[in-house]
Amino acid sequence: MQHVQKNTNIRLTLPVVCFVWQIAMIILFGVFIRYDEESDTHWVETKAHDNITSDIENDFYFRYPSFQDVHVMIFVGFGFLMTFLKRYSFGAVGFNFLIASFGLQWALLMQGWFHSLDPQTGKIFIGVESLINADFCVAGCLIAYGAVLGKVSPVQLLVMTLFGVTLFAVEEYIILNLLHARDAGGSMVIHTFGGYYGLTISWVLYRPNLHQSKRMQGSVYHSDIFAMIGTLFLWMFWPSFNSAITDHGDGQHRAVINTYLCLASTVLTTVAISSFSQKTGKLDMVHIQNSTLAGGVALGTAAEFMISPYGALIVGFLCGIISTMGYIFISPFLEKTLKIQDTCGIHNLHAMPGVIGGIVGAITAAAASESVYGKQGLINTFDFTGDFKDRTVLTQGGYQAAGMCVSIVFGVAGGAIVGSILKLPIWGDPADENCFDDEVYWEVREPATHHLLFTIQPLGGAIVFDLVSRDELQTTFEIYI
Amino acid sequence: MQHVQKNTNIRLTLPVVCFVWQIAMIILFGVFIRYDEESDTHWVETKAHDNITSDIENDFYFRYPSFQDVHVMIFVGFGFLMTFLKRYSFGAVGFNFLIASFGLQWALLMQGWFHSLDPQTGKIFIGVESLINADFCVAGCLIAYGAVLGKVSPVQLLVMTLFGVTLFAVEEYIILNLLHARDAGGSMVIHTFGGYYGLTISWVLYRPNLHQSKRMQGSVYHSDIFAMIGTLFLWMFWPSFNSAITDHGDGQHRAVINTYLCLASTVLTTVAISSFSQKTGKLDMVHIQNSTLAGGVALGTAAEFMISPYGALIVGFLCGIISTMGYIFISPFLEKTLKIQDTCGIHNLHAMPGVIGGIVGAITAAAASESVYGKQGLINTFDFTGDFKDRTVLTQGGYQAAGMCVSIVFGVAGGAIVGSILKLPIWGDPADENCFDDEVYWEVREPATHHLLFTIQPLGGAIVFDLVSRDELQTTFEIYI
Amino acid sequence: MQHVQKNTNIRLTLPVVCFVWQIAMIILFGVFIRYDEESDTHWVETKAHDNITSDIENDFYFRYPSFQDVHVMIFVGFGFLMTFLKRYSFGAVGFNFLIASFGLQWALLMQGWFHSLDPQTGKIFIGVESLINADFCVAGCLIAYGAVLGKVSPVQLLVMTLFGVTLFAVEEYIILNLLHARDAGGSMVIHTFGGYYGLTISWVLYRPNLHQSKRMQGSVYHSDIFAMIGTLFLWMFWPSFNSAITDHGDGQHRAVINTYLCLASTVLTTVAISSFSQKTGKLDMVHIQNSTLAGGVALGTAAEFMISPYGALIVGFLCGIISTMGYIFISPFLEKTLKIQDTCGIHNLHAMPGVIGGIVGAITAAAASESVYGKQGLINTFDFTGDFKDRTVLTQGGYQAAGMCVSIVFGVAGGAIVGSILKLPIWGDPADENCFDDEVYWEVREPATHHLLFTIQPLGGAIVFDLVSRDELQTTFEIYI
Repeated sequence: MQHVQKNTNIRLTLPVVCFVWQIAMIILFGVFIRYDEESDTHWVETKAHDNITSDIENDFYFRYPSFQDVHVMIFVGFGFLMTFLKRYSFGAVGFNFLIASFGLQWALLMQGWFHSLDPQTGKIFIGVESLINADFCVAGCLIAYGAVLGKVSPVQLLVMTLFGVTLFAVEEYIILNLLHARDAGGSMVIHTFGGYYGLTISWVLYRPNLHQSKRMQGSVYHSDIFAMIGTLFLWMFWPSFNSAITDHGDGQHRAVINTYLCLASTVLTTVAISSFSQKTGKLDMVHIQNSTLAGGVALGTAAEFMISPYGALIVGFLCGIISTMGYIFISPFLEKTLKIQDTCGIHNLHAMPGVIGGIVGAITAAAASESVYGKQGLINTFDFTGDFKDRTVLTQGGYQAAGMCVSIVFGVAGGAIVGSILKLPIWGDPADENCFDDEVYWEVREPATHHLLFTIQPLGGAIVFDLVSRDELQTTFEIYI
Repeated sequence: MQHVQKNTNIRLTLPVVCFVWQIAMIILFGVFIRYDEESDTHWVETKAHDNITSDIENDFYFRYPSFQDVHVMIFVGFGFLMTFLKRYSFGAVGFNFLIASFGLQWALLMQGWFHSLDPQTGKIFIGVESLINADFCVAGCLIAYGAVLGKVSPVQLLVMTLFGVTLFAVEEYIILNLLHARDAGGSMVIHTFGGYYGLTISWVLYRPNLHQSKRMQGSVYHSDIFAMIGTLFLWMFWPSFNSAITDHGDGQHRAVINTYLCLASTVLTTVAISSFSQKTGKLDMVHIQNSTLAGGVALGTAAEFMISPYGALIVGFLCGIISTMGYIFISPFLEKTLKIQDTCGIHNLHAMPGVIGGIVGAITAAAASESVYGKQGLINTFDFTGDFKDRTVLTQGGYQAAGMCVSIVFGVAGGAIVGSILKLPIWGDPADENCFDDEVYWEVREPATHHLLFTIQPLGGAIVFDLVSRDELQTTFEIYI
Repeated sequence: MQHVQKNTNIRLTLPVVCFVWQIAMIILFGVFIRYDEESDTHWVETKAHDNITSDIENDFYFRYPSFQDVHVMIFVGFGFLMTFLKRYSFGAVGFNFLIASFGLQWALLMQGWFHSLDPQTGKIFIGVESLINADFCVAGCLIAYGAVLGKVSPVQLLVMTLFGVTLFAVEEYIILNLLHARDAGGSMVIHTFGGYYGLTISWVLYRPNLHQSKRMQGSVYHSDIFAMIGTLFLWMFWPSFNSAITDHGDGQHRAVINTYLCLASTVLTTVAISSFSQKTGKLDMVHIQNSTLAGGVALGTAAEFMISPYGALIVGFLCGIISTMGYIFISPFLEKTLKIQDTCGIHNLHAMPGVIGGIVGAITAAAASESVYGKQGLINTFDFTGDFKDRTVLTQGGYQAAGMCVSIVFGVAGGAIVGSILKLPIWGDPADENCFDDEVYWEVREPATHHLLFTIQPLGGAIVFDLVSRDELQTTFEIYI
């Protein structure tokens, strides 16, 4: 066993990156970012000018409840979902917190430049919808974090987020603006991109000796319950995620119904496959924590369409099966054959279901009809206005499919480039035998527990402990009694 | 000690039940379920037709925030409340997830057939209020789960939910539509029914040798804190629960105020009785986790009435006392004398407070007056329109009381029948000595901890362990150090 | 080591206080509290009278989502933030629950008498905004709890809350009504007051021998993760906190944007300073749990102002630095020199950032201009109407600063008086060596774990344990295996 003593001291790099980037944010915000007309004190004049009779018609009241749900998904959902490892919960929830906080600022700028830069003033005007989009953008990077969880330093994560947000804003611009594809819940833009971005980075950063930290992989009883907090908040609030930026009125309403149904269906097939995959029918927490969410991912594009309630159930049905199968068969294959070490199994939870979502979106768009949507409903749903007023649903389906390809290309190509940057030996990443261990980057007051297997023989009043097996022999242990 | 080796292999039954039922849901949804006019793309036409000026008047914006709170109560609230057992947290939160996900689909159908089947088209049109009602229906089954927690297999739970939802839809139809009783927060329809349904099932499934798994009953320190997550999300969001389907405007507003106050009052009397029940005034976590919620249950019927703020406080005051007393005196009595083993004490948290809620509702309805409510207010609150436009408040009080009896009858009779079905030896339930143990149905990576009580005497540098007591003597232990 | 055997039996005092106070609440609510016109069944008449066209214009729909977020912050946020101690999580979350439930009732009365007593009827009319204000008032007392966490009895906490709410209502009346200062998110009214109130009480209750319970101070791995639940719910919902009672429309919208940005910025500088403060750049969970929130506190006054997005980032930037520095340098200084034992470091999280918030508010108010706000916008934002219609922004800035002084004076003077009352030897507080231990006031089924440091030498099949160090030598231990 060779012990490469990597330098994980980040006392200089981490503070410098945090300070410099935050100062850059302040300067760029000072130059570019302003309140939009609904969050500016001039709103009272806007109201008078636009004959808006009540403050309740401020977009804030349409979107704020959904925004807060999305916000919970980003910080508690993603953060706690990754706490399942026995000794990497600080890193899971803490680094998630750090990169999301940076990412959302950078996203407001990047998305603003690409989507809402006012040509006359050169300013970006932000409101509650901008905050939702920033959170969405961050989600892409947090998905990617799932693939490299426990194997990178916080500095690497910040670099990954900087480039990830940048790539996201560009691919989002191409897919939503140039191709005019619809993707309200981000099956393509968020999940497919984020998934392949993370997987490719993990492939570039492949660690052949990762087995040296095998003792730190896997969960303990309570860490699995912490992870369920993440799972459930993601699951419960996914209807808000998929509806947060859809059209006012029926658009938001329908996206909620579809996502709610789809996710319920996913739970049943996940449980079925998980149970069937074990000799005695026992359930595996990994599947319950992750695959139950695949339906929400796969309905990200089509949630606002008239996919109909039973259509939503079918999507969920298939995703539960495919995602759980992914954990059982595909993840081991990816690791062994393709050398992709995917800590959280994001291929099964985001990449594959994201692609399914793109396909579902393309098909349902192509199959849309005036008889189902109504004339105006079809125009509203697919935004067939302006330059796109003559587009047919078939063409739209084609552009949806093209959008999915764009997201994959950006994920893979971007991941390859960023992975190469992260491979430089300057970022303070941990040695193979110290992966998945919070003690590398955190002050941990209580040392990790290790397992000793004894048989105990009571001889009179005293006890003799017979050692049966042990993880490590040469260390000093601390016993909790 | 006799070890009945029950067959808990559910590798066939669980996947088959999940698959078949989910496919049935898809088919039935395909035949019956459609978007309602507020979630359909034709909403733009509805708006024009009905002179609705703004999208904000879509029912979605009145009810979605409450819906999401209710959704959190169902999945995180009920799920985590039951994690208090030291080694049944996977089952608590995981099976809760499974049966709620199935139940809400079945509820949309059952409630749809009984409440909103369109006679012309033969379709059920769903919107956000349907989703809330489906969650409510599921709540009844999750309450029942609390009585049998740790003693049944997931297949039994699914069967229990199938019948539970069916019974719920029927009793709800009788109480709300035929008797025209009011029950917005479901004191009768949800809590009384769910409570007695679960208790009767537990009575039928009585296990005389349950003491064989005594080592697994009770909590450990961290499992009690996990349970507090459930308690608090239930407690905080209960105002949303009781107001989610009340009248727009003052109806929702008032239900929130009443529930908020009632629950605050419950906390103080729960603490008082809990402290007084111990020699040294120490508090018991079981009471804090459960009895603090009784006020919300008991205001389920009357929350939308003009019970007045101090009236709400009085209801909470009494419920805290009664529920905590229930844990101290009534639960042991039920187990010893009536042979009802009630794992979570749902009799104290749901059944009794539910009955109190029914009575409070009947009295406050009978005491309603035009001087307090206003002429139109009285009509709106009790929905004295159509066939019921001549009903007096006194008559209404009588029907409220009748409603409560219906919920009890359905709970007990339904529970007896379903309990008998669940007694069949085909469902894979655990043996008496394996109850409350996640290892029966879950892959648990970390074995359970057991207690050894030693005295330690340092002799020179070495330690002698003197055994004082031990749970089990003949097994091999794994020591965590 | 002297063992003062203090009497911590609260079997009489706690139930009596809970019962008597709750009965007093019921009586006072019966005399004073009524539904306001938006939550009364007469709303239908109010609507007709005021030409309100839709129920959606009921204040309920403007504020309820924010209210629920604030409610989560009070009960889960504050409660779980304090669970970080290894064996005081029951007390953290349980006593937080108790005092908040009492405090919000008393707050409705106190705030009602001072702010909204109807002179004609002598009644207080409550609606959703009253509930938010009651929760805010309670927050002040929960902040104070942070300073004395683990060192006081629940009876003392209830006394502290009774006086704390009373003082709060008076200082709030002086600051908001008499001085007409703006403080929507309560930098001054809530955080500065609550911080100094708690710190002064802790100073009066100074325990010179607190080191005797040193073994119970500090966290374990899982308690730190529980605390992160509190941190994240506070952090995510802080935009709701600062916007919950601001003006409809742009006021709420802008307060959300500002708080969202400010908090993101705080996270980066907190991480930077935390990492830089350790030799190897490791992060400290105490900083991440607490200092990341300082930005929300510091924007409590100015969140509704046109501070501009980059202004919000700057406030967050500075607060992350100052608050983390506080934990590293100021807290040890306060304890050693000023004899202030501040368990949760509320000086760094609430008192200091609160003062910063007051200063930021005064400066931004004084710097407000018609060119930025618009004529009507300026009037709306600072409520320059009625008696205050001729006030200039400069004067306003002066009154803001005066408000901050009032909050400090009330905190310190009130804390000194209340601290003296709490020093009486009748409240059942724990002995110095039993601080931070749940077993004093809670039935704990699982005894605390202690540390024994051994070296283990495998000799043949048996193991010899060599004792290296131990916390306590003379007790009987229970070993978990």
